[in-house]
Parts: sequence; structure tokens; C-alpha cells
Amino acid sequence: MSGKVYKKEHQIKYYECDTTQKMTVSMLLNIMLHVSGEQSYSLGVGDEVLAEKGLAWIILQYEVNVDRMPAFYETINITTQATSYNKLFCYRTFKVYDEEGNLCVTVNSTFALMNIKERKMARVPDEIVAPYGSEFSKKLIRSPKPEKVDEETMLSKEYRVRYLDIDSNRHVNNSKYVEWVMDTLDLEFLTSHEIENMTIKFEKEVHYGQLIHSEMSLTKQEEGKVLTAHRIVTEGIINCEASILWKKAR
Amino acid sequence: MSGKVYKKEHQIKYYECDTTQKMTVSMLLNIMLHVSGEQSYSLGVGDEVLAEKGLAWIILQYEVNVDRMPAFYETINITTQATSYNKLFCYRTFKVYDEEGNLCVTVNSTFALMNIKERKMARVPDEIVAPYGSEFSKKLIRSPKPEKVDEETMLSKEYRVRYLDIDSNRHVNNSKYVEWVMDTLDLEFLTSHEIENMTIKFEKEVHYGQLIHSEMSLTKQEEGKVLTAHRIVTEGIINCEASILWKKAR
Repeated sequence: MSGKVYKKEHQIKYYECDTTQKMTVSMLLNIMLHVSGEQSYSLGVGDEVLAEKGLAWIILQYEVNVDRMPAFYETINITTQATSYNKLFCYRTFKVYDEEGNLCVTVNSTFALMNIKERKMARVPDEIVAPYGSEFSKKLIRSPKPEKVDEETMLSKEYRVRYLDIDSNRHVNNSKYVEWVMDTLDLEFLTSHEIENMTIKFEKEVHYGQLIHSEMSLTKQEEGKVLTAHRIVTEGIINCEASILWKKAR
Repeated sequence: MSGKVYKKEHQIKYYECDTTQKMTVSMLLNIMLHVSGEQSYSLGVGDEVLAEKGLAWIILQYEVNVDRMPAFYETINITTQATSYNKLFCYRTFKVYDEEGNLCVTVNSTFALMNIKERKMARVPDEIVAPYGSEFSKKLIRSPKPEKVDEETMLSKEYRVRYLDIDSNRHVNNSKYVEWVMDTLDLEFLTSHEIENMTIKFEKEVHYGQLIHSEMSLTKQEEGKVLTAHRIVTEGIINCEASILWKKAR
């Protein structure tokens, strides 16, 4: 676990929280990614340097572990650290601490580089990752696989991809997939449960104007925990898969 | 134009910008409102003090004037100032300055107090507004009225109110109405035009699960400017009206 740690303080705003006053996972992922972008910039390997080489970072997977989701008006510290990389994948961990220094959320992520012109994954050049101080390791990290949706019992909701779903990276913002995933559950469920763990795998990006189907099945229920399986589908193609382990809200 | 000025620096994040790299109006309104919330808190009249009196602020209208919308990674300064008030309405101005001190955006807003239990507008108590140092003036400020939608030529899109449209204030976030308004225009229009002026009037709040109709008509086109008229309607009731004057993007 080498790699330089970059840290940033963040004050939680009312519009980053849901009706339970807790920060939303989608906003947390947005802010985290801004922090890693700042680290890259400070190390001289920001997005504009990558763009000159015809490359851009893409996110393949997030695994989110929540001990306690911070709430409105708390000041949190977010750390980010590139942990290891191999020919194709870069692994990065984010941690969220509250004012007392308690670890609240841990997010393990898998990044890759895309050749912008060819729209294909590119080999990771040493000079791009060297500044982060992370280890080269041939070993592929086995990321947890999202639970499969049960087609017999699944529910589905439709969403049209909107103009404002696209951010300044000129792609549909990754947090929008999380919003479509969560919105398949109803108000009563979402206000009475909290996310304990979420695994989300981004497979194929969606585009402006597409009609996406957010499909969900309730997979397991035991000891007050609920496991939901999700996928985002467009025209029969799976764009994103996710599963969420929920616990009763405190 | 009395009233204490409160100022806050803000660094623009990638997820606060659209595909043209410029900050979105909806995120700007969110951030502005956080800044005025901070001023209230610092003056000892924060939301929790109001809640003890059974009161909460509601926003009736925004008038947004854009000289230049700041872009990704710029650091802006947002100022807010309560300008005057009368028995029922409080007027507040927000200004956004760039790093060189140029005024980029001005937002004039009309706030009112709601009696939470009765869901009715309440008289503005002196002790709540005194700390802001703004003037009492019997004179009602005539806010500009949004242009009316032309029913013969209007287009309409439907949106379902989602769980994550509700923020920690336990109401649908005001910026969501702006998102529904803007999404009636297509990608080609939105990437080739910029907002010069927007007037948005909030009339009746929408609720979780409701199907809203975002209606739009293209009212005038002259000298490269376009005026669009908008309204948000649920079950025949107008929830929100807006009009936007657009100019060709630079």
C-alpha cells in the first residue's frame, strides 16, 4: 500500500444531502473524484496533460463501504491514494473522516486509461503513474462482482438521459448511474434504510437522449439487512451493474 | 441598499459544470443559497432558530443576470446582502465575482417566511431580520414577471419527481425546477446558447412521485437573441413559471 496521500477538507452543503440530512452517495462520489483530480493536477499529471497524449481516465468500478454517512454541515476530510497499478488498471482508495477523525466511508476504485480517438482502453504509461508513487504489481485485484438482477422478480423504471446529466468531462457523470440505481427504490425504503456497502461496475457509457431502464430486484433479506441487485440497460445492452447492501437507518 | 454583505470563496468543480465547461445555473443557485444560509447562521438567525419559532424561509423568485458564467476550476467569490424587507417579503441580492474581481453574475431574489404548521406565509418578525441590517420599506419591489408560455406552439416534456430531487430541507430542491425548465431545450441549442437573463417564479411546490410537465415555447427571436417561456405544471396547476433570454455562445 504505497502511494502519496492527498487530503482535502470539505464542508457538507444542504444540496449534497437527502431528506434524511445525510450526504448522498452520488454527491460523495462527485466530490471524491474532484479531490483525485486535484491530486493529479498538483503532481503535474492533470487531465490536460493526459489530453495532450490523447488519453483520459475512465472509472470502471467503485466499492463503497459506509460506516456512518456524514450529514449536513459537518466538515469532512477526504483522502485519496493511488495504491497499485498494472498494465491496464490503476487502483485508488478514498477515505472520508469526520471532525473527530473517525473513518466514515472507504471507497475502493478501479480506473483505466482510454485512448480518446480509438475509444479503447490504453496501456498505462509509467510517466503518468510514477508521480503518484504507487506500486507496479502484475497481480490483478479481484474486485467484488455486483449481484445479478433476478429477471423473474425485477422491477424497472425508465429515465431519459438529460442535458445536465453530462458534466464538464463531456460524458454522463458517473454519479447519475447511482441516482438511477437508487431511484428504483421508494421513499419509504430509502428513508428507513442506509447503504452499508455498494458495488457498482460501469460497463458501457450511456449518451444524451437515450432511454435507459433501471432494473432492480430485491435479492435477500435477513437480520434486518436487505440486498438489492441493479442494472442499467439500454436497447438490450447492459451499461452498468450494481448491488447494494442496506441496513436499517439509525 | 443597506444590509451587511457576507462573502464566500468557491472553487468550481467539474460536476458543477455542463458539457460547455461553464457552471450550471442550477448549481450556482444551490451554492448561493448555502452562502446565505451561512450568513444567517453567523448572525444567530440560522434555520434552526427559525424552526424553533415554527418558521422556514421559502424562495418566491430569482432573477438571474449573467455577464459571463464562470467555468471549471475558476475560483469565484459569492457575496450576499439582504437589501430591504416589508411585512411579507425580504429582498436579497447575490453577486458572483471572478478572480480578477469582475462581476460575472447578479441574482436578485425574493424570500418569504412560511409558518411550517399552517403551510402559509407568515409576517416577517423584526428580530429575525434585524441582524442582517437591511432596511424596512413599505414599498413592494415589482419583480419582473416571467413571459407567458404560448399554448399553441408549446412543447412539453414529462418528469417524475425523484427521491434525490428532495434535499435536506425536506422539499424538492429549487434548482430542480431550473433543470426541468432547461431540459425542454435540446443539446444543440443548449451548447450553442448562453443564458443572459432568467426570471423564475416558484408558485406551488411539487412533491415526490408527482408527474410534472415542463412546458416551453419559443417566444421571440431577434438580433441573435432568443426568448423562451416556461412553466412547470402538475394536474393542471402551475407550480413554477420562468422565462429565459438567451444569447449566442461565445
